[in-house]
Amino acid sequence: MSLSALCPGTFDPVTNGHLDIIERAAALFDRVVVGVVENPQKEPLFALEDRRQMLKEGTARLENVEVDSFSGLLVDYARDKGVAAIVKGIRAISDFDYELQMAQMNRQLSSMETCFIPTSPSWSYLSSSLVKEIARLGGDVSGLVPPHVLERLKEALA
Amino acid sequence: MSLSALCPGTFDPVTNGHLDIIERAAALFDRVVVGVVENPQKEPLFALEDRRQMLKEGTARLENVEVDSFSGLLVDYARDKGVAAIVKGIRAISDFDYELQMAQMNRQLSSMETCFIPTSPSWSYLSSSLVKEIARLGGDVSGLVPPHVLERLKEALA
Amino acid sequence: MSLSALCPGTFDPVTNGHLDIIERAAALFDRVVVGVVENPQKEPLFALEDRRQMLKEGTARLENVEVDSFSGLLVDYARDKGVAAIVKGIRAISDFDYELQMAQMNRQLSSMETCFIPTSPSWSYLSSSLVKEIARLGGDVSGLVPPHVLERLKEALA
Amino acid sequence: MSLSALCPGTFDPVTNGHLDIIERAAALFDRVVVGVVENPQKEPLFALEDRRQMLKEGTARLENVEVDSFSGLLVDYARDKGVAAIVKGIRAISDFDYELQMAQMNRQLSSMETCFIPTSPSWSYLSSSLVKEIARLGGDVSGLVPPHVLERLKEALA
Amino acid sequence: MSLSALCPGTFDPVTNGHLDIIERAAALFDRVVVGVVENPQKEPLFALEDRRQMLKEGTARLENVEVDSFSGLLVDYARDKGVAAIVKGIRAISDFDYELQMAQMNRQLSSMETCFIPTSPSWSYLSSSLVKEIARLGGDVSGLVPPHVLERLKEALA
Amino acid sequence: MSLSALCPGTFDPVTNGHLDIIERAAALFDRVVVGVVENPQKEPLFALEDRRQMLKEGTARLENVEVDSFSGLLVDYARDKGVAAIVKGIRAISDFDYELQMAQMNRQLSSMETCFIPTSPSWSYLSSSLVKEIARLGGDVSGLVPPHVLERLKEALA
Repeated sequence: MSLSALCPGTFDPVTNGHLDIIERAAALFDRVVVGVVENPQKEPLFALEDRRQMLKEGTARLENVEVDSFSGLLVDYARDKGVAAIVKGIRAISDFDYELQMAQMNRQLSSMETCFIPTSPSWSYLSSSLVKEIARLGGDVSGLVPPHVLERLKEALA
Repeated sequence: MSLSALCPGTFDPVTNGHLDIIERAAALFDRVVVGVVENPQKEPLFALEDRRQMLKEGTARLENVEVDSFSGLLVDYARDKGVAAIVKGIRAISDFDYELQMAQMNRQLSSMETCFIPTSPSWSYLSSSLVKEIARLGGDVSGLVPPHVLERLKEALA
Repeated sequence: MSLSALCPGTFDPVTNGHLDIIERAAALFDRVVVGVVENPQKEPLFALEDRRQMLKEGTARLENVEVDSFSGLLVDYARDKGVAAIVKGIRAISDFDYELQMAQMNRQLSSMETCFIPTSPSWSYLSSSLVKEIARLGGDVSGLVPPHVLERLKEALA
Repeated sequence: MSLSALCPGTFDPVTNGHLDIIERAAALFDRVVVGVVENPQKEPLFALEDRRQMLKEGTARLENVEVDSFSGLLVDYARDKGVAAIVKGIRAISDFDYELQMAQMNRQLSSMETCFIPTSPSWSYLSSSLVKEIARLGGDVSGLVPPHVLERLKEALA
Repeated sequence: MSLSALCPGTFDPVTNGHLDIIERAAALFDRVVVGVVENPQKEPLFALEDRRQMLKEGTARLENVEVDSFSGLLVDYARDKGVAAIVKGIRAISDFDYELQMAQMNRQLSSMETCFIPTSPSWSYLSSSLVKEIARLGGDVSGLVPPHVLERLKEALA
Repeated sequence: MSLSALCPGTFDPVTNGHLDIIERAAALFDRVVVGVVENPQKEPLFALEDRRQMLKEGTARLENVEVDSFSGLLVDYARDKGVAAIVKGIRAISDFDYELQMAQMNRQLSSMETCFIPTSPSWSYLSSSLVKEIARLGGDVSGLVPPHVLERLKEALA
């Protein structure tokens, strides 16, 4: 078999926690598609192209990872890409509760499988929203995102 | 004793999960009032009258179920209707945490009792919000809501 | 309809938390059967007859409550007694997780319904095991169990 | 050692639950700073000065409690105030999940410690949002906030 | 890549829930090793050889599944078998809390990855312990285990 | 004020996670009493004196930490020692659920306060039981306990 997986997300912006999950998914599957949700409802800080670009830089050294984007239904996109599973990092109970609901729904809609990978303890408290909130308030997020993302964050919030 | 229960909710729109809970409540109480919250803050997709109508069609075969609506405080409405308890379906931990808070508050405000009925495993991942989100993105929700709701959803999102 | 409910438990011994749930169930159903599990695996502190007797004294003023005991499968007993639902008090998340599993299983085995009633905040930390442990270590449990149970606890642990 | 603690929050308005935690923190630390978040994003019902004033009246009898306000990063403010720890009341699992994330992040950002104090069972269902929602709908919140806050709530919602 | 996964467990006995997870793992990995823990501490109902045999019959139609057993440390066994990941089914919050702890520990001990697959809602309430308890009390577990396991259960409990 | 805190536990044996919490408590209170529960029910691996000795070595560099032991009721011991609060590390939801129950009970019994300190993410998966289980199965626990505990563990399990 040659199996691929989908890591979906808004990635606004990508954090060290996201990169940890993508890297570990890349060790478990032949190919990993990172699918950036266009997601106009959430009013992201970064434009889609910027979010994609930051992911591309962050995953450049992973040969079997491809950065892409999508709108519409996640399971439709997953099927079009031909992936065997959706991969999600799980940090805490509240994540689990929500992601379990989505995983069950996605199986009902299209038999698409979801695998949960536990986030490394070091990133268990990390989220894009929290990174943006801290950066907005002048906090130092240099240990939480890769250097190229740190640069972009400073520009975007300047 | 002749006891009645109140199943409150926004029902925007009613799903198979709601109907499962209402039907089971109707087997446990002499009369079940389904109370549709007018709830202007949430900006529902369907007008109050439409939400009521969909519930009426969905519960038509249950003789001891009455569909009604209310604004104002839930416990005031429950007392006015003379019900013995509020009945809520519980799907997951996050539901439980929130509903437990509401139940304790409602007992403090008016000694009104709340009974939790566990949602059937088959509907454990189901919510009105998720149904609307999937339908908006073109997904097939025909197994998640009754046929007459499916029709209305298609019209509303057309 | 004339509906009855079953409050099952080991009641080793009955606490103020149990009595709160039984009393509230008695306000919601025409008849409440308190079913004491014989349960030889758990090696209870009190013999079955003592546990029954303490429950009888504790519920004497509730006219529609009957104290009984059973061995074997809960749903078989519930069906034999002709109850419409099993009623369980829920104190916390860990209760909920376990009781939800049991409720789903009991519906699968026999379509028996389970209603959860949230324990009053005042008794949210209370359990028979904790009462016994505290009493064994010489702590004062007089606010946690009725006076007649307090007497028996002192005798049993003397 | 002479140690002080910070109780941060929006306090829109202060409830009996907040006052319970502040009072208990004041028994554990030499000095307690109550830090009101200016927090313009949340659109509070009460102006910052009103929220401060209500807290001052509510904590007047606690000699080692000081009411202050801040904008910017919580850990920066905590460091400027020279506190040894942030103190948070914890009511339920959902609180815990979120507050644990914030506590881990705050330690990562600045080695600032967070202590959790469990909310008294009597206030476990209480929050400023719920108090406002109930008051808006005409419910009686007189047991949930101090009398001077009740007055202000009535004025604000008139 | 040609990747294999390990599904470890006591399987005392294998249930429909286990088989669902094994089957889904077999669709995601080139090879799946089902590793039966010898685990003398738990005093299983079935001897190791019986547990293996029931698994072999239950997975006979899955060509890339191999049934094996082990004693000792899970991560040592996983490394000896050359698997890329441990796969665990997750039913509920309590599962998640425990399995997350084990997964973090196993990564710390040996960099072994753990993937969680959410159990199908239909089996969310199912466990080997509960199946045995129900069968012991005379309940009908025919929908919860495969027919050949049902036979063995009846013999073992006769 | 000169306040002291109590860190109770079985410490069978002390782990790096325990030491992290004790060290952090020692920065928040004037004096920290580490109270080793004699606890004959649990059949600890190490004798009380050994558990105390390992704690003494592990906390030798913390001047305001005292190692002691107790039997009987925790709150009686806490009152006898004159501490202002019990301090507990919290790793996960299951910890929280149990510890919240104990904290509420202890306040009811004696107004004794409990403070929860979140365990560092690095030790979130760590427990004495798991350390012993891994060591028994030949796993390397050198990063999980201090060197002097590692030695004792090897001896005890030899």
